[in-house]
Amino acid sequence: MAALFRGSRNLFQRCNKHVDFIAVSCRSMASKTPVGFVGLGNMGTPMARNLLKHGYPVIATDVFPESCKELQDLGAQILDSPAEVADKADRIITMLPSSPNVIEVYTGPTGILKKVKKGTLLIDSSTIDPSVSKEMAVAAEKMGAVFMDAPVSGGVGAASLAKLTFMVGGLEEEFNAAQELLTCMGANVVYCGQVGTGQAAKICNNMLLAIGMIGTAETMNLGIRLGLDPKLLAKILNMSSGRCWSSDTYNPVPGVMEGVPSANNYQGGFGTTLMAKDLGLAQNTATNTRTPVPLGSLAHQIYRVMCARGYANKDFSSVFQFLREEEGQ
Amino acid sequence: MAALFRGSRNLFQRCNKHVDFIAVSCRSMASKTPVGFVGLGNMGTPMARNLLKHGYPVIATDVFPESCKELQDLGAQILDSPAEVADKADRIITMLPSSPNVIEVYTGPTGILKKVKKGTLLIDSSTIDPSVSKEMAVAAEKMGAVFMDAPVSGGVGAASLAKLTFMVGGLEEEFNAAQELLTCMGANVVYCGQVGTGQAAKICNNMLLAIGMIGTAETMNLGIRLGLDPKLLAKILNMSSGRCWSSDTYNPVPGVMEGVPSANNYQGGFGTTLMAKDLGLAQNTATNTRTPVPLGSLAHQIYRVMCARGYANKDFSSVFQFLREEEGQ
Amino acid sequence: MAALFRGSRNLFQRCNKHVDFIAVSCRSMASKTPVGFVGLGNMGTPMARNLLKHGYPVIATDVFPESCKELQDLGAQILDSPAEVADKADRIITMLPSSPNVIEVYTGPTGILKKVKKGTLLIDSSTIDPSVSKEMAVAAEKMGAVFMDAPVSGGVGAASLAKLTFMVGGLEEEFNAAQELLTCMGANVVYCGQVGTGQAAKICNNMLLAIGMIGTAETMNLGIRLGLDPKLLAKILNMSSGRCWSSDTYNPVPGVMEGVPSANNYQGGFGTTLMAKDLGLAQNTATNTRTPVPLGSLAHQIYRVMCARGYANKDFSSVFQFLREEEGQ
Amino acid sequence: MAALFRGSRNLFQRCNKHVDFIAVSCRSMASKTPVGFVGLGNMGTPMARNLLKHGYPVIATDVFPESCKELQDLGAQILDSPAEVADKADRIITMLPSSPNVIEVYTGPTGILKKVKKGTLLIDSSTIDPSVSKEMAVAAEKMGAVFMDAPVSGGVGAASLAKLTFMVGGLEEEFNAAQELLTCMGANVVYCGQVGTGQAAKICNNMLLAIGMIGTAETMNLGIRLGLDPKLLAKILNMSSGRCWSSDTYNPVPGVMEGVPSANNYQGGFGTTLMAKDLGLAQNTATNTRTPVPLGSLAHQIYRVMCARGYANKDFSSVFQFLREEEGQ
Repeated sequence: MAALFRGSRNLFQRCNKHVDFIAVSCRSMASKTPVGFVGLGNMGTPMARNLLKHGYPVIATDVFPESCKELQDLGAQILDSPAEVADKADRIITMLPSSPNVIEVYTGPTGILKKVKKGTLLIDSSTIDPSVSKEMAVAAEKMGAVFMDAPVSGGVGAASLAKLTFMVGGLEEEFNAAQELLTCMGANVVYCGQVGTGQAAKICNNMLLAIGMIGTAETMNLGIRLGLDPKLLAKILNMSSGRCWSSDTYNPVPGVMEGVPSANNYQGGFGTTLMAKDLGLAQNTATNTRTPVPLGSLAHQIYRVMCARGYANKDFSSVFQFLREEEGQ
Repeated sequence: MAALFRGSRNLFQRCNKHVDFIAVSCRSMASKTPVGFVGLGNMGTPMARNLLKHGYPVIATDVFPESCKELQDLGAQILDSPAEVADKADRIITMLPSSPNVIEVYTGPTGILKKVKKGTLLIDSSTIDPSVSKEMAVAAEKMGAVFMDAPVSGGVGAASLAKLTFMVGGLEEEFNAAQELLTCMGANVVYCGQVGTGQAAKICNNMLLAIGMIGTAETMNLGIRLGLDPKLLAKILNMSSGRCWSSDTYNPVPGVMEGVPSANNYQGGFGTTLMAKDLGLAQNTATNTRTPVPLGSLAHQIYRVMCARGYANKDFSSVFQFLREEEGQ
Repeated sequence: MAALFRGSRNLFQRCNKHVDFIAVSCRSMASKTPVGFVGLGNMGTPMARNLLKHGYPVIATDVFPESCKELQDLGAQILDSPAEVADKADRIITMLPSSPNVIEVYTGPTGILKKVKKGTLLIDSSTIDPSVSKEMAVAAEKMGAVFMDAPVSGGVGAASLAKLTFMVGGLEEEFNAAQELLTCMGANVVYCGQVGTGQAAKICNNMLLAIGMIGTAETMNLGIRLGLDPKLLAKILNMSSGRCWSSDTYNPVPGVMEGVPSANNYQGGFGTTLMAKDLGLAQNTATNTRTPVPLGSLAHQIYRVMCARGYANKDFSSVFQFLREEEGQ
Repeated sequence: MAALFRGSRNLFQRCNKHVDFIAVSCRSMASKTPVGFVGLGNMGTPMARNLLKHGYPVIATDVFPESCKELQDLGAQILDSPAEVADKADRIITMLPSSPNVIEVYTGPTGILKKVKKGTLLIDSSTIDPSVSKEMAVAAEKMGAVFMDAPVSGGVGAASLAKLTFMVGGLEEEFNAAQELLTCMGANVVYCGQVGTGQAAKICNNMLLAIGMIGTAETMNLGIRLGLDPKLLAKILNMSSGRCWSSDTYNPVPGVMEGVPSANNYQGGFGTTLMAKDLGLAQNTATNTRTPVPLGSLAHQIYRVMCARGYANKDFSSVFQFLREEEGQ
C-alpha cells in the first residue's frame, strides 16, 4: 500500500507539484508523524532535540542506553534497536561515527532493514565512504525503502543552534521530503545529486579545507619568520589571491582573529582526529577511483602524524602550532 | 605638500644618517622631476608607460636595446647603463627577472650604485629573494641612498591598466615618496614593514595561492570522479569552508567560470614557469629560515614536474588538466 | 612423514574444530592428488604449468574460457566454476587480480566455499588487502577449510622459471603443506605469521621499493644536473649509505646497468599500473590502521599521476624519465 | 716561479708521470712539509690529529681559540688567522660548518686568499653548496692556487679512526696530491669530477639516505601494525627489492639490530639537525637547477618538523619514533 502511495507521490512530484496528498497522508500527512532517530551522540542528541522543538515526536535508539537519557527526559520514546524504530517510524534519521556502524545499523541482525516498512525514508547524516552509502541505498531499495545520504558540516555548536549545512544525495524527487526534516536541524540543505554525492561533497570540502588550513599555517609561519606582522600578513593575503576560508574566517595564528579556536589555545572547534578521519575517507575514495590527490594525501599524513604527536583533541587549526615550535626550544 | 613632508622627514634622518639637505631638495622639489627606470621587459615597459602618462619624464635603460624602442618613441630618454640613469635621476625603479639581475644592476661595474646620488630613492619591483633585497638596501645605504622592495602582484594586463598591487618593504618614512610613484602604476600600494617584507608578502601570497590552486584542482577532480557536477561542487565549496580564491575567482575546471584561463585552454594568466620560480624562492627562503612548509614544498615540486611535462607556458591553473587525464587514454 | 605430521596436527585442531580424520587423510595421503587452480592469467598459467611439471594433476577454472586453453592442452582438467573445482580438489590455489575477484571466487554464488570439503587447504596468491584475506580465512574456517594468503614477488618471468618468492600468512602448522606446493612454483617460500601477514609483507616491501625507486630516480637526476657521471654516482651511492635495491640492482638511469628495463626503454619489468595498485593497497591499509606513511603516500600519488600521463604500461623505473625531461624541450 | 712549477708539474702529470720533481720541491718534496688546517671543531680536531700522527707538521687556526688547545698540546703551531696559515703552508685543509663560514675563511679580510701562495693546494672538507665550491675555486685560481672540494661521509668516530670517506671534486691532475693527505684521515678517497662534484655526490647520497630511512621507518611501522614481527619483516625486506642501507645496516626499529642508534635510544649517530641541514642543501641545489625532487623535498620537510618537535639532537633514524607514537597515548 505504502508502495503504491509512494509511486503516485513521485508521479505528482515529477509533474512539478510540490505536494503529493496521498503520500503525505502516509509519511507526512501531518508533517508531525513520528520521526525515528538512531545515534544519540554529541551530534545526534542536539539534532533530535531540534526535531522535538519543531513538534515532531521522536522515536530513538542508541547502542549506549545512557546516551538516550536526555532525549527521553525531553519526551522522546526510546526503543531497544534500530529494527524496532523502523517498525514504528517511516522517516528515520541516522547519525553514526563511521562506515561499519552504518552497515551494522542498517543491515545488522537488529538493523533498520530487518523491519523497515515500504516507502520509508531513510536519511543517513553520518560521514562515511560514499560507496557504503550506495550499498545501503541498494539494500534499502530491495526492501522498498528510500535511502539518502545527508552528511553535515558544522559541529556540535551548529547542531544545537540548528545551523548545520546538509549535503544531500539521493533521488531528486525525494529531496523535498528530506528537506522538510533537515531544515529543522540546519540552516542550509543542498541537493548534490545521486546517492553518495552528499558524502562526496562533504569529503571534497573537508579535503580542500585541510589543504587550505595547513597551507595557511605554513604560509603565516613563513611570513612571521621573514619579519611580517601576522595581522598585516593575514590582511594582505585576504585582499589577494592567497585568500581562503582558513585565512579570512578561521585564522590559525593566535592574535590574528577573535572568537576562533586559535584565540583559545585551539580548544573547541573541529578536532584533529575528526579531520584525520575525513581525510582518510578522501584518501580511500581517491585511491579507489584512481584519482591523484597529492596535497590531500600529504594533508592526511600531516594530520595523522599530529594525532600521533599529541594534537588529537585540539582543533585542526593547531597545525600552526605543530609546525611552529622552533629548534632548541 | 608631499615634498615638504619628505623634507622634514629626511631632516629627522639626518640625525644619524648622511643624507644632506641638497639631496632632499633635489629628490622632491617637484614631483615631476625625472624618474629612472631599469628593465623594460613585458612588465617594465607598461609600468614606465604609465609613469609617462602621469607626466613624469622617464630616463630608462635595458640590457636589450631593442626593448627600449617603445619607450623611446613615447618620449623617454634612453641611456646606456644603470649607472648613467643613476647619474641623472634621483628616483629609480627597477623591474628585473631574478636575483642575479638585481645584484648586477645595482652593484655591477656599470650598476646604479656606481653613480647613485645621495638621497636617491631606489625602488625594486622585481620578485627576488628577500635576503638579496636586504643586501641591496645595505649597499645603497652605504652610498647615502634609500632602497625599497616593492614587488607586484598582477600580470601584464594589470601593468598596462595600472592595476598592479605593490607590496612595499623599507623605511616607513620613505613610504609616501614611494607611494607617489607607485600609485601611477598600480591600484593598491601596501606597506609591509622593513626592507624585504614586500618580497616576503609576495612570496607568502603566491605560495598559498599555489597550494590553494592545486588543492582546488585535485578536489574538483575527485568530486567529478565521484559523480558531482563541477559547477555544483564549486558552488558548495564556495559557500563552505573549502572556499578559496582558486575555487571562487579563478576556478581551474573548464566550464565552471567564464573569463578565466580554464575557459580558454589555459592560455594567458600566470604561467606555470613563473609560479615555479616564485615557489622556488619560497622554498629557498623557508630552507634558509628553517621553516617547515610541507605543502608549499610539494606544490613547488608539482609545478616543477609540470614544467618538465610540457605545461611551462600554460596558466598555473592547468594543474587540473595535469592531474586529470586518465589511464588508458 | 609430512602426512603423519599433518595428521597429528589436525588431531589437535579437532579439539575445538570440525576437521575430521577422513578429510585429513584425504588431503595428504599422497602428495600427488589433484590440485585445484583458479585464475589462469599471465601469472596463474605459468604457475599451474609448473605444478603439472612436478606431476600434480591440475583441475582448473577461469572466468575467461580462452584462458584455459593452454593448461587444457597440457593435460589439466578444466571445470566451469570455482565451486566445481572445490568439489574435486582438496588443495586449491587462487591467483586473481584484486580483492573483489577474490571475494567473488571464494564467497560468490559459484564460489569455492559453496562446495569446499572439510580440511581443504586454500592458498590465495593474489595481492589483495590483508583484511580481505582475514575475512576469507574466517569464512573458510566456518566451512572446516583452511585459508592461507601467499602473495608472490617476481613477475611473469619468475613465474615461468619457478623462481617466485611466496610470502605466506596463516596457521603455522599448515605451512609445511602449503610449502610442498609452493616450492614447485617458487624459489623462496617465507612464513610471515598469522593470516594476512603474507599480504602485509608484500605490501610493505613494495611500498619501500617504490620509495627507493623514486628516491633513486630523483637523486640520480639531481646528480647528473650537478655534473656527476651517472655510472660514477651509482657506484658512489652503492658503496655508501644511499645504497638500495633500486640503485644497485635495478638502476633506473639508461646506460648505468645492463639487463634492466632502463636499458630497454622501460619495457618489461613491473608495470607502473601494478605498482600504483600495490601502493593503493598500502595506502588503504595505512589509513585503516591510522599509520602515517608520508613518503609511501607521496610515492602512490606520483605513480598515480604517471598512470595519468602515459606511463601506465612502462616499467615502474620509468619514473626517472617522468622526472627527467626538461623545460623547453 | 711557483706558477711555472705548477705548469710544468701538470705537464708531467698529464704525461702520466706520477711525480713532478720541481713542484714537489715546492709543495711536497718531503711529503712532510707543514699542512695548514682551518677549523678545529668536532670533526676538524681528530682529522688534524691524524695528520700529526702521520708525521705532518700542522699549522692551524680556528675562530675559537679554545678549540685550538688540544692540537697545540699535540705539537701543532697555532696562528691567528687563515691568512697567516696561508702564509706558512702550501697545502691547507678547511673543515667548516656551512657556506658562509667557507666564504669568510677563504675570501674574508683575514682569509686564506689574502696571503695564499701560488701553487698552494686548498682542500675544503666542509659540506656546502656546490656553487659556493665553484666560486671558491674561481677565486683561488685567480690567485694561482688550486681549490678542491672534499666533503666527508662518516661522523666523529670515523674521523678519529681515520675511516672517513672523502668525495673529491676538482682538477683530476691534482687528485693524487689531495689523496696523499686525505688517506691519512680516511679509508676511502673517491674522485668525483670537476669542482663541486664532491659536494654533489655527498648531497645526493644523503638525500637518498634520508628517503631510504624515512621509507624504512614508515614501512616497518606499517608492517608492525599489520601484525608482522619487526625482525622478520626486516629479514624479508633485506632479501627482497625493499632492501636498502637503512633496512639492512642501520635499522631504525629498536630490537631489530644491535650496535646502531635505534638500539641506544637514538643517541649518537648522525643528528637530525645535520640531516636537515644536508637536505636543505639538496633542496636549494635542486631548486637552483630546476630539478624535481619530490621525495627529497618531503624528506627535508619531515626532518625540519622533527627539529621543531624535539628530535634535533637524536640520530636521524629516530624518525621511526616520530611516526610511531599512537593516538591517545
